[in-house]
Amino acid sequence: MTSTPAPGPSVTTGISVTPLAGIPLVKAGDDLVELLAAALAGNGITPVAGDVICLAQKIVSKAEGRLVALGDVTPSAEAIVLAEETLKDPRLVQLILDESTDVVRKKPGVLLVRHRLGIVGAQAGIDQSNIEHGPSGAPDDEQALLLPVDPDASAARLRAGLEARFGVRLGVIITDSNNRPWRLGSIGNAIGCSGIRVLDDRRGDVDMFGRELKVTLINRADALATMATLVMGETTEMTPAAVIHGLPPDDVDEPARLAIRPLEEDMFR
Amino acid sequence: MTSTPAPGPSVTTGISVTPLAGIPLVKAGDDLVELLAAALAGNGITPVAGDVICLAQKIVSKAEGRLVALGDVTPSAEAIVLAEETLKDPRLVQLILDESTDVVRKKPGVLLVRHRLGIVGAQAGIDQSNIEHGPSGAPDDEQALLLPVDPDASAARLRAGLEARFGVRLGVIITDSNNRPWRLGSIGNAIGCSGIRVLDDRRGDVDMFGRELKVTLINRADALATMATLVMGETTEMTPAAVIHGLPPDDVDEPARLAIRPLEEDMFR
Repeated sequence: MTSTPAPGPSVTTGISVTPLAGIPLVKAGDDLVELLAAALAGNGITPVAGDVICLAQKIVSKAEGRLVALGDVTPSAEAIVLAEETLKDPRLVQLILDESTDVVRKKPGVLLVRHRLGIVGAQAGIDQSNIEHGPSGAPDDEQALLLPVDPDASAARLRAGLEARFGVRLGVIITDSNNRPWRLGSIGNAIGCSGIRVLDDRRGDVDMFGRELKVTLINRADALATMATLVMGETTEMTPAAVIHGLPPDDVDEPARLAIRPLEEDMFR
Repeated sequence: MTSTPAPGPSVTTGISVTPLAGIPLVKAGDDLVELLAAALAGNGITPVAGDVICLAQKIVSKAEGRLVALGDVTPSAEAIVLAEETLKDPRLVQLILDESTDVVRKKPGVLLVRHRLGIVGAQAGIDQSNIEHGPSGAPDDEQALLLPVDPDASAARLRAGLEARFGVRLGVIITDSNNRPWRLGSIGNAIGCSGIRVLDDRRGDVDMFGRELKVTLINRADALATMATLVMGETTEMTPAAVIHGLPPDDVDEPARLAIRPLEEDMFR
């Protein structure tokens, strides 16, 4: 082994995750720190040091003005062909191509890409559910919501605002749902992080019998995002945020991009 | 849409996950219901209806006698070639081949297979960490631990035993760690389930604006397994079990095998 980073402290007394009900519909320019503070108060929660505030990507993207009107998009020839292959709206496909670096797999109904952030998933994370129609309200006035430009930076800004507000060290995770190649059903992914340990690296640790541990790198950020996503449910329930409490104190601050597997390790290209 | 199963009830007040410290080293033939009951009592926990008891695969496999001495394994010519390609012990590779139906990807240090249960992962889930050496104690007296023969059946037996003991309806999840192609760091998978809703199917539901939901199938079992795996940590910490509390009442009983993506949907074969 080369360097052996200290592993994160152990959880000994349990952790809890609480959905934050009562967050109103978010519009471009909304101050999420204000909305979260109001929701925390409304749910009787005062965050303490080490708590992790999780937000669904959707409200961060909306606040940052990442809604795009499909009517403003002119699909390229490439997007039109790909739209025919995947049975998708060519304007949506153009947005997906603009947001991504690679098409990973395609078939009718499926367009799996590598987002410019490195995240591999369907449609470059672009969602059309829980999106208002555009200003005209007409059925053809459709919009699509892109991921934040830099979710780690968004998480850092939100954390700074929340820490200033509450006067304690907090973590922030921006969550998204993602599918996996061999398992059904989505789980949560952390696409933006601040103030948390993303990867718990046990490489070099030995087990109870002195043998080197095999599973040595634990994705804490995705585990926390998955917990939060479970209690958020779909946003029909109007709970696009959650608070995780009870994690051991830890002063590590890692970005979510740390959890992207390097391209040279991708065995499926 | 065709049929629209009712989605699971929403979580509204938060859920908690508590590690169960104090479980001794498990040996073949041990009664896990007794060990869990003692650990629950030792941690001051009396399970209530709806609680989900999570166990690491390792202790279930050990109790079921799934330890194999590598000295008893004679590698085939196929295993010897594959061992050279992957830099692994040919006897271990033979066990992996015996437990699997397909090699999904291979390279030096990596052998990704489809386990006969359908689970795609490294080494068919066979682990050598936290495993005692064999009876002789000699360094070459190595052992490997296979997954339970039928983890869903194991979960159902454990659930029956725990429910008889505590007189309330419980869920049981047998967890394992798994890696993903495009993300670093392991998360938890549910490889055996009883008494829980594995997939929360929202297909046909509409969002707040009347549009059909895009992310419509949520893998609750893996989310719960991931929560439990996070607090269990590596088993150096001697906490190979955890209790999840606060899930909404639900009488669904689905097996973990429901979460295996059908072969015909596998875009990576």
